[in-house]
Amino acid sequence: MNELKKRRVELSHGGGGVEMNNLIRKVFFKHFENDILVRDEDAARLQFDGPVAFTTDSFTVSPRHFNGGDLGKIAIAGTVNDLAMAGAIPQYLSCGFIIEEGLEFAELESLVQSMAAELAKSGAKIVCGDTKVVPKGAADGLFINTSGVGTCIAAPSWKRLEAGDAIIVSRDIGAHGACILASREGLELDTELQSDCDTLWPAVKALLDAGIDTKAMRDATRGGLAAVLNEWAEARELGIEVAEQALPIDPAVQGLCELFGFEPAELANEGTFVVAVAAEQAEQAVAILQQFQSTATVIGKVCNEYAGKVVQTSPWGSKRYMELPKGELLPRIC
Amino acid sequence: MNELKKRRVELSHGGGGVEMNNLIRKVFFKHFENDILVRDEDAARLQFDGPVAFTTDSFTVSPRHFNGGDLGKIAIAGTVNDLAMAGAIPQYLSCGFIIEEGLEFAELESLVQSMAAELAKSGAKIVCGDTKVVPKGAADGLFINTSGVGTCIAAPSWKRLEAGDAIIVSRDIGAHGACILASREGLELDTELQSDCDTLWPAVKALLDAGIDTKAMRDATRGGLAAVLNEWAEARELGIEVAEQALPIDPAVQGLCELFGFEPAELANEGTFVVAVAAEQAEQAVAILQQFQSTATVIGKVCNEYAGKVVQTSPWGSKRYMELPKGELLPRIC
Repeated sequence: MNELKKRRVELSHGGGGVEMNNLIRKVFFKHFENDILVRDEDAARLQFDGPVAFTTDSFTVSPRHFNGGDLGKIAIAGTVNDLAMAGAIPQYLSCGFIIEEGLEFAELESLVQSMAAELAKSGAKIVCGDTKVVPKGAADGLFINTSGVGTCIAAPSWKRLEAGDAIIVSRDIGAHGACILASREGLELDTELQSDCDTLWPAVKALLDAGIDTKAMRDATRGGLAAVLNEWAEARELGIEVAEQALPIDPAVQGLCELFGFEPAELANEGTFVVAVAAEQAEQAVAILQQFQSTATVIGKVCNEYAGKVVQTSPWGSKRYMELPKGELLPRIC
Repeated sequence: MNELKKRRVELSHGGGGVEMNNLIRKVFFKHFENDILVRDEDAARLQFDGPVAFTTDSFTVSPRHFNGGDLGKIAIAGTVNDLAMAGAIPQYLSCGFIIEEGLEFAELESLVQSMAAELAKSGAKIVCGDTKVVPKGAADGLFINTSGVGTCIAAPSWKRLEAGDAIIVSRDIGAHGACILASREGLELDTELQSDCDTLWPAVKALLDAGIDTKAMRDATRGGLAAVLNEWAEARELGIEVAEQALPIDPAVQGLCELFGFEPAELANEGTFVVAVAAEQAEQAVAILQQFQSTATVIGKVCNEYAGKVVQTSPWGSKRYMELPKGELLPRIC
């Protein structure tokens, strides 16, 4: 393991020869070990029978370490969550590393360990991978792409939204965006503002196991809750009405938003999802989700009015549109 | 399409809001259009019944445009080829873009067009994607990850290699590495040195359709022919004997190698594969491959001697090891 005693990744670790083989075997295989990730075959061989979800995400998070997670955790949770949102069991993931020459091995290995720990939460496995090393200055430390495939056991889709459906969020919104904002601004906060970054599969599985018909599901990542609801309303050509006072927002997130002029509904999340269910299943669905996050709640409903729009009602009876976010994502989270 | 009239990609195009939706619909969906790449669902829903290959590759090629191809072409051919090498039909690809702020839209769109043209050669479809924009300086222009899934119709594996099997290369070796080297060094060459970058599925399909038992297949990318043969020999614990004079090498590639002190067998290829077949099928397999590339030929055989090693014999009877490449990949091709 001589190569890895060098403290930093070098271009040779991406060269396809001796050093790359060592990196793959001694770091990646060590932590991701499973029976499919066989050495010396480029492609994994899987077995499926029926509908399969396929998704991809690249992770360029900066800073790579934040309160509540790191790039490794988010790279697994993000793709596992995309599969879960498609009603699919998170079974198999690929992993593509783009490493900047000079990255410390200790950091790379700690991120790989984070990935392995997050994989354990859903049982997903890394079954194939790719490693590239680019010269110093050609990338910002480390980018990770994960793609995922898994067997579909439900078929949520915005196409199934109907007037009357309840809109539920799985927890309080905006924690990831606010956490990154705080760390970017170097704010010393009284509260322990922590990213929501997490694997959502256990909560989704609990809903499905209980027979909840998850008509539409989406995790509220970039663009936040506002992006999900607007995309649903526009695609389905129905309205969505949200009660402003029903939005679960942590006081620390609310405070940061007031300080910087952000809308909590536009802040990114990395472990928060929106699910639409028939009204009669809403209470049961919320009760299940609250076993995972006590702040899960109904925030509104699908309606025939305001086709294509999301309307926010205030406790005083006034209404305003919740718009699709526009312009540069602030804080930049990826 | 106001946003796209701006000449360059901005951070807002990765923000998850209005501008990103426009970029996705007006550039990516426009060129990749197909019935599965449905808007507004993160994951694609596919149907499989049986063994499926799953593979991933990130493409960080520099320069992004070279004689015989570009980053877009290589990003499709690379993953399609990984599926083909696994004996799988290249059916479905994901596509993750990491774009440096400031990349010209015209270049992005031309690379996307290259991708679409290359997809047409195998019939593979882009069915899901992801777009990230990172600040100026945080990436070198554009990185593309493609992952792929496809139904396996053959099961090649180094585990099936046996003494006596013929080792065939699908064309002359080292063209991509030599081409990149020439463009890096700014050499004005008499010959039109062109990368071999290409989709290998038609040639693989022809072999399979003809009933050739492709015992082991691998495209000779980073690390070149030497990496493939060494990995096979080491994994299978058998020897591989290669006749030096049988190696098909273009004179321009040979000349560059002599000038810079490279081994053609260590140069990267992007559209050249190695296939092992039983000796009695070798002639037929070569004849089929020559319909695609006239330089396809048998270069050697698997043997019981030299277990774990690759031995190169010269026309004068001398022997030397063909080693697994070590150190920095030169020229750096990815």
